[in-house]
Amino acid sequence: NGTLVEDISAFNNAVSNAKPGDVIILKNGIWKDAELIFKGEGTEKKPITLKAEIAGEVFIEGVSNLQISGNHLEVHGLFFRNGHSPSENVISFRTNEKEVANYAKVTNCVILDFNNLERDQDNLWVQFYGKHNELSNCYIAGKTNGGPTVRVDLKGNQSIRNFHKISNNHFGPRPRKGGARGETIQLGSSFTSMSPSNTTIANNLFEECNGEVEIISSKTNFNIIKNNVFYKSEGSVVTRHGNYVTIDGNYFIGDGVNEQYGGIRIINTGHWVTNNLFYKLKGKSFRSPLAVMNGIPKSPLNRYNQVTDVVVAYNTYVDSSSPWQFGVGTNIAQADVLPKSEIRSARPLRTEVVNNVIYNSEGDPNPIIEHDKADGVTFESNIIYNNGVAIANDHGLIAKELSLTEIGKDLSVPITGFDDVVIYEGFDFESITNDLLGNSRNESNKIGAILNAANVNLDLLDKSKYGAYWFSDVKESKEVKTFNVKSTEALVTALNEAESGDIINLINETYQLPKSLVINKTITIKSEGKAEIIYNGAASTPAIELHPYGKLTLQNINLKGTTTQFAFASLKENMSNHFGLAVIDSEISNFNYALKVYKQSFSEEIIFKNTTISNCENGIELSEETNDRGDYNTEYLTIDNCLFTDIKQNVIDYYRGGYDESTIGGNLLVTNSTFTNCGAKEQNKTLLNHRGIINVNITKNTFENNPVQFISTLWGAKNNVASDNQISNSGKIATEENLKQKLMY
Amino acid sequence: NGTLVEDISAFNNAVSNAKPGDVIILKNGIWKDAELIFKGEGTEKKPITLKAEIAGEVFIEGVSNLQISGNHLEVHGLFFRNGHSPSENVISFRTNEKEVANYAKVTNCVILDFNNLERDQDNLWVQFYGKHNELSNCYIAGKTNGGPTVRVDLKGNQSIRNFHKISNNHFGPRPRKGGARGETIQLGSSFTSMSPSNTTIANNLFEECNGEVEIISSKTNFNIIKNNVFYKSEGSVVTRHGNYVTIDGNYFIGDGVNEQYGGIRIINTGHWVTNNLFYKLKGKSFRSPLAVMNGIPKSPLNRYNQVTDVVVAYNTYVDSSSPWQFGVGTNIAQADVLPKSEIRSARPLRTEVVNNVIYNSEGDPNPIIEHDKADGVTFESNIIYNNGVAIANDHGLIAKELSLTEIGKDLSVPITGFDDVVIYEGFDFESITNDLLGNSRNESNKIGAILNAANVNLDLLDKSKYGAYWFSDVKESKEVKTFNVKSTEALVTALNEAESGDIINLINETYQLPKSLVINKTITIKSEGKAEIIYNGAASTPAIELHPYGKLTLQNINLKGTTTQFAFASLKENMSNHFGLAVIDSEISNFNYALKVYKQSFSEEIIFKNTTISNCENGIELSEETNDRGDYNTEYLTIDNCLFTDIKQNVIDYYRGGYDESTIGGNLLVTNSTFTNCGAKEQNKTLLNHRGIINVNITKNTFENNPVQFISTLWGAKNNVASDNQISNSGKIATEENLKQKLMY
Ligand SMILES: [Ca+2]
Ligand SMILES: [Ca+2]
Repeated sequence: NGTLVEDISAFNNAVSNAKPGDVIILKNGIWKDAELIFKGEGTEKKPITLKAEIAGEVFIEGVSNLQISGNHLEVHGLFFRNGHSPSENVISFRTNEKEVANYAKVTNCVILDFNNLERDQDNLWVQFYGKHNELSNCYIAGKTNGGPTVRVDLKGNQSIRNFHKISNNHFGPRPRKGGARGETIQLGSSFTSMSPSNTTIANNLFEECNGEVEIISSKTNFNIIKNNVFYKSEGSVVTRHGNYVTIDGNYFIGDGVNEQYGGIRIINTGHWVTNNLFYKLKGKSFRSPLAVMNGIPKSPLNRYNQVTDVVVAYNTYVDSSSPWQFGVGTNIAQADVLPKSEIRSARPLRTEVVNNVIYNSEGDPNPIIEHDKADGVTFESNIIYNNGVAIANDHGLIAKELSLTEIGKDLSVPITGFDDVVIYEGFDFESITNDLLGNSRNESNKIGAILNAANVNLDLLDKSKYGAYWFSDVKESKEVKTFNVKSTEALVTALNEAESGDIINLINETYQLPKSLVINKTITIKSEGKAEIIYNGAASTPAIELHPYGKLTLQNINLKGTTTQFAFASLKENMSNHFGLAVIDSEISNFNYALKVYKQSFSEEIIFKNTTISNCENGIELSEETNDRGDYNTEYLTIDNCLFTDIKQNVIDYYRGGYDESTIGGNLLVTNSTFTNCGAKEQNKTLLNHRGIINVNITKNTFENNPVQFISTLWGAKNNVASDNQISNSGKIATEENLKQKLMY
Repeated sequence: NGTLVEDISAFNNAVSNAKPGDVIILKNGIWKDAELIFKGEGTEKKPITLKAEIAGEVFIEGVSNLQISGNHLEVHGLFFRNGHSPSENVISFRTNEKEVANYAKVTNCVILDFNNLERDQDNLWVQFYGKHNELSNCYIAGKTNGGPTVRVDLKGNQSIRNFHKISNNHFGPRPRKGGARGETIQLGSSFTSMSPSNTTIANNLFEECNGEVEIISSKTNFNIIKNNVFYKSEGSVVTRHGNYVTIDGNYFIGDGVNEQYGGIRIINTGHWVTNNLFYKLKGKSFRSPLAVMNGIPKSPLNRYNQVTDVVVAYNTYVDSSSPWQFGVGTNIAQADVLPKSEIRSARPLRTEVVNNVIYNSEGDPNPIIEHDKADGVTFESNIIYNNGVAIANDHGLIAKELSLTEIGKDLSVPITGFDDVVIYEGFDFESITNDLLGNSRNESNKIGAILNAANVNLDLLDKSKYGAYWFSDVKESKEVKTFNVKSTEALVTALNEAESGDIINLINETYQLPKSLVINKTITIKSEGKAEIIYNGAASTPAIELHPYGKLTLQNINLKGTTTQFAFASLKENMSNHFGLAVIDSEISNFNYALKVYKQSFSEEIIFKNTTISNCENGIELSEETNDRGDYNTEYLTIDNCLFTDIKQNVIDYYRGGYDESTIGGNLLVTNSTFTNCGAKEQNKTLLNHRGIINVNITKNTFENNPVQFISTLWGAKNNVASDNQISNSGKIATEENLKQKLMY
């Protein structure tokens, strides 16, 4: 009862005739612009199956999606790539508002870079409706447009108490989105935050899920987040709305350096955080290993409820900075610029932090930080090894001499040395039956996440446990090829032929460039003797046009315009993936804009280093995200050891708007650079504009004869600093403590 | 293993030694000022029991209470009366914040009039904590002070998913409280509205539970309200906060006249209203048989969430006016006087009103009222018998010819004549397995609450099913005694000797009264020939002092002061129960105040009829509830055919303050009366002051030569009307559409 289908009409025919036990087989090859609607009524013993002829050899491309409804259905082995969805999701567990799927499973599939053409075109890649559905053993990576990768929807009684399972998936890299709406998984929304969801997220690997501050945003009740590995992911598991979520037996793995890797952020009532390991996390405040937030008294539905009746027990924290933070998000100081309904002053109540173990190879004087008082929190039976360093505010932490036991690859934890600590027996603690490794706590229980490590040799990144069995995300290393070019024509040809990672070396001294160079892969363009590229294309076109995936390093080049063009620019539309730009040891002159980045374009990093930018009407312009939804155009903008001369306006203009207490970007670094005769036409009389950017560092620069009033206005309440600058005849650096921002909600 | 104890120390001793299976027996008699702390560890098979020697013959009086903690405990046969609690509850299922009761039961007990001394001294009579506790077969009546009669508390994980049972109780009359905080049962609070409660309220009789607009206020999740009888109770069952409440198989019985008897008012998500009978209910708007409210978009925690995913199915409505009302509480028109966070503009979504039967002996042109559009509601398979009257806005109601079948005493419902109606099968409707009478819906299902009535003869008020078996609330009728008195001394003696309901007849013409007459029961004082009482007591004391329970009818009496005293006054403090006053065919003159009612005093009714009030500095004064918590001093103030002459100020001053959209009182009627030369010293230049009173009717009066600017300022948005008044030289009647009020929340 397997039916091989070759095209959509055969597929539709097979679907409409499918009976319990039937298997519909998609023929190998590319299915372009395929809108697959898979409806059927299978049974528990005889599901209806949709599968690839050979798993991984059926490619869903172009403008395509998959919608599923009915009962007992399975989908196997599809590969979504080279395209995007025509609808609000790529895979949907419903076919229309009334028809949802139940007991349906999508397994061993891959969705890769299946992005909408614009960042602001939000969608979802997998959207759950109905009940008892499953997403398992899939590899899903590369989402750059707005919207969570996976969302569980609860609107309607047919989708509550859903008991969906999201298990054994590999959530691969999700790049920074630059603003909100970049979660990997969202369970419901604030509008359904009163509904019981009972969704389980278990045994998944989250690797470099960097979309935004939330990796998982739980917004409904009774969800279970269990036995997952969060590996170098720039975000946290957040109980954003809803209550009574269990977060048990997860691994949060950092690198001891990156401050973006978070842990668990707690809002609302009744959550249990047990048996988790927090390893080398350096996240602070919102991203601290345990961040317990302050709530808004009588909070509006979509804001922050008070934390009450939360249990944090039997967790182990290794080399994680200030792992426990309370009153996170308190903003009483901002009462002047925020409405009353935004003031988070309600401290946690009836919360227990007990039976936990902290180990610090380097002592931490502040393992517990109280942004606001933790007077509603019970601390009992917690221990710390702090390498002899005294603790300011210990809340009864018991100091112990501990050592580490290796439990797997790059993973050593404290397991012995605290058998004597009396366990705190909270209400219902008998329900914590096992430790992180599955050992029973019934006999010889003790504090911490791990009871013993006999015969344990963990490999948390063992890909055989996660994702589609037929797919590997390991990239083969390729040899870098260098193209030596002597003419503009050869340059254009080389650029076409080169593969990502290759280098183009300019041999001649001068290149006349009549048309934009298109960069749509990772490319280095360089020269030995500072080759000159003279762009004489049309006004308002760029010498170098950065397309999706286009990541350019320009080194040792003298790039000149004829005053009306742009040196670099992104596309005005369809920037469906990120670009990147590094300009090193170069000269940029005689342009209208040095860099013009359009709305919805995003780069993880833009660097100018040892470079001169001169005689331009405008400098570096990333300020089109003015709808104030929290978005911005680059995560990092770094200017180091550069010379800016005679830039009339927008010397640097880097903007983020919208009140969003949890956004942590962007980042502006301006160091060791000199600005001379810049800003003459700047309308707001400020040389460096970076309104709304969270991290700004202006250090060791020289500002000379710039006819402005201000060099910069720092945002005092955020991480904006300036130091060691030489200023003459250039206005001053001002500070505005609290910035008025448009509410995003 | 029964231990008879005679006093508290023996009781405490017995409690501290109690083992599973033990019975502690309180000796018959009055236990005065008894603070009983009942702690113990029984087992499921061997509970520890606390019981009366003979059920109903152990009286807990004075300043007394009962606190219970531990496991498997039972309390039987106690009678709480003649006193009040020293703590915030009379019976508490905990003994301190950490020690709660589980599997504890209070049964066959009575709590009667066990009121705190002041109305504003809120407390609870039964407060649940812990899990699996039960209140059953109790009779509970007469609460007049603030606070719900019974509350289930959920703060702390030890009290969630509590599965408490409140069953087979008789909740007897709870008088109108005059403002909020008069619920009979409250399940949680807005602060725990996210918590699962799973409390069941089943098989109870609620009789004349008139405390406020909510009889049951469900504020948590997953509660079950099943098979109860709501009999002539001035309020509704309200899903105030929290979600997923089941309201199944209840009887809501009215009298076809009283507009205060309500049904079910719906707020929030996921409630199921099934198999209920609504009988002769005349409540409107907030009190309509089915009131589906509008929510506040992104509501604050303690306000009104939007209604979503609600099911109203298989209910029967008999002779109930406009039984379905949607968008109740919409207040877009008041946007000027209310903050944005108070505007209820969010209409119900994904709500199903299906398979219901409506029967109207007298046709109702508007069975469905849309205060705001019901465009998010699905109406299907509903029928109506409307006695031929056309329906304006029928939402698909199917007209049928129906007749009534008697199913019990004074109870006739439509059962046949609609077998042909196709049943709407909503999501999960198979879970509605039975009808109101317990008949299975598996075979031959049909719409409406009752499938068939074979062998059914209901007596909903059969007291043997409810309350304590040893207690009856039926009052024996007594013969009225008349005391004929000829002297003041005899009058005072008679007043002492008289029982409630007796009459004192003044024979002589004149009585000199040197001290206040105390009224503390229901008494009539009258004369045939208009006897004169001349009060010459101290200044600012009343001729007649109204104490708790004091309900006076004064008829055909000429009551005179010497300008400095009050004619009538309540107590300044300790008004632990209601008073009442009717003044008929009488004359009141030469007082400082005709009537002075102090803060926290409350009367259900005050009447002046065919009476002259003259030459007083102040008139009728009920305006001390100025803390604006929604309270007021009389439910009804009725002035009919009276003459007010030379009253200098506060001619009528009747006040209610605080924004509370659900309060329905008080009521001021001023009819057929004449006001002359009044209000000369009134500071606000208004003759009749009734700010905040919801129902005001000023009709057929004459106002002559009153030196004021306004006779009255009506509250346009509420039920304030004036008509057919003759006004000369007395200012005018104004209307203020929207009153600015202090928010109570
Ligand atoms: Ca987010
Ligand atoms: Ca209430």
